[in-house]
Amino acid sequence: MRKTFTLFQSHLDLAHRYWSELLSVGDHVIDATCGNGRDTVILATLGAKTYSIDIQQNALNEAKLKVESKGIAQLVTFIKGCHSKFPEEIESHSVKLIVYNLGYLPGGNKDVTTQVTTTLKSLEHALDLLVAGGMISITCYPGHEEGKREEEQLLYFCQNLSPREWSCCHHRWINRKLSPSLIILQKINV
Amino acid sequence: MRKTFTLFQSHLDLAHRYWSELLSVGDHVIDATCGNGRDTVILATLGAKTYSIDIQQNALNEAKLKVESKGIAQLVTFIKGCHSKFPEEIESHSVKLIVYNLGYLPGGNKDVTTQVTTTLKSLEHALDLLVAGGMISITCYPGHEEGKREEEQLLYFCQNLSPREWSCCHHRWINRKLSPSLIILQKINV
Repeated sequence: MRKTFTLFQSHLDLAHRYWSELLSVGDHVIDATCGNGRDTVILATLGAKTYSIDIQQNALNEAKLKVESKGIAQLVTFIKGCHSKFPEEIESHSVKLIVYNLGYLPGGNKDVTTQVTTTLKSLEHALDLLVAGGMISITCYPGHEEGKREEEQLLYFCQNLSPREWSCCHHRWINRKLSPSLIILQKINV
Repeated sequence: MRKTFTLFQSHLDLAHRYWSELLSVGDHVIDATCGNGRDTVILATLGAKTYSIDIQQNALNEAKLKVESKGIAQLVTFIKGCHSKFPEEIESHSVKLIVYNLGYLPGGNKDVTTQVTTTLKSLEHALDLLVAGGMISITCYPGHEEGKREEEQLLYFCQNLSPREWSCCHHRWINRKLSPSLIILQKINV
C-alpha cells in the first residue's frame, strides 16, 4: 500500500505530529491556553496527564464538556487563571510538553487575547518546568496585528536562547499570508 | 521504555525524517545536488530508485564508491550535469521527492557553488516532475553571502506558488545564526 503524507496541509497537523512523536503515556503536559479544549483533548487522548489553563470560565466549561464526552476527564486538571502563572504544584523539570495557542478564543470575545508581556513571562517560567528533551509548542497568528507583534517578540526571545541548551525551529507556511506559524523549542538532553 | 525524540538537533535529522515518512520502496526520487553522495545513500537505503545529479565528476566518483560499499548501487543512476537540466527519461508527474542541498561541495572547490538562476530554473522544472503528494526538500545555507541571497530568492519564488496547489513550509533554527534552513514544498493531492 502506498503511504499518504499530508503533513503540510496545516500547522495543526504538524504540531500534533510532533506532540504524538514526543509523548509517552503518563507524561505530564500543560495546555497553557486551553480555549475550547481542542488541544487538551488531543494531549489527553495521547495518554498525557494534562494541566489545562485558561482565564475565561466559559472556555473551560466548554473544554470540560469535551473531555467528559471523550471519556478522558480523569487525565485533565482544569485551572482558571492567567497563562503567565503556572500552578505551584507543577514542579521544575517535570513537564514533557507545554502548548501555547496564542490569540483569542475562536467565537469568543476578541478583546480577550493573549498579550506579549504575559506570554513572555509565561514562556520564561515554562523553560524551567521542562524536563530534558521536553518541548514547547507555540502557535502564532501573524495574520492580525497583535499576533504579528507577539510572533516578532517571541522570535526575538527565542533567538537569544543558548543553542547549547535549546533547539528552536520556526515553521512558516510561506505561500499562505494569513497562515499561523509554529515555533518549536526543545530542551536539549544534556 | 521512554521515547527519545531529538528531531531538532539538526536540519538534517528533520529533512531525513520527512523523506522517510514520505517514501515507499520503488518510488522515484532525484538528488539534484549529489555532492559526495550523503543524501543519495539515504534515499537509496529507503528503497527509492534514485537519479543523482552533479556537475563535478570527482563528487560523483566519491558518491559511486559510497553506494557500492553499501550494496545499493543497483538503485542509483548517476548523471553528470547541471542541476538546472533533468534527464529527458524522467517523465512529468513521476517523481516522489526531489532533494536540493545547496552551496558548495564539502571539502571541494568553493568557487563551484550552486547559483540562484540555475537553482530557480531547476526548481521550476522540478515542480512539473512531481506526482501529486510529492515533495521538494531544499537545504539552504544563509550563513554565507551567496547562500543568503539564494535563500531569499527561493523564498520569494515559493511565496508566489498557489496555496491551492502547493504547501510550502520554511524551517529556520532561530537561535543558531549560521544554521542551514530547510524549505519543504509539497504538491497537494488534488
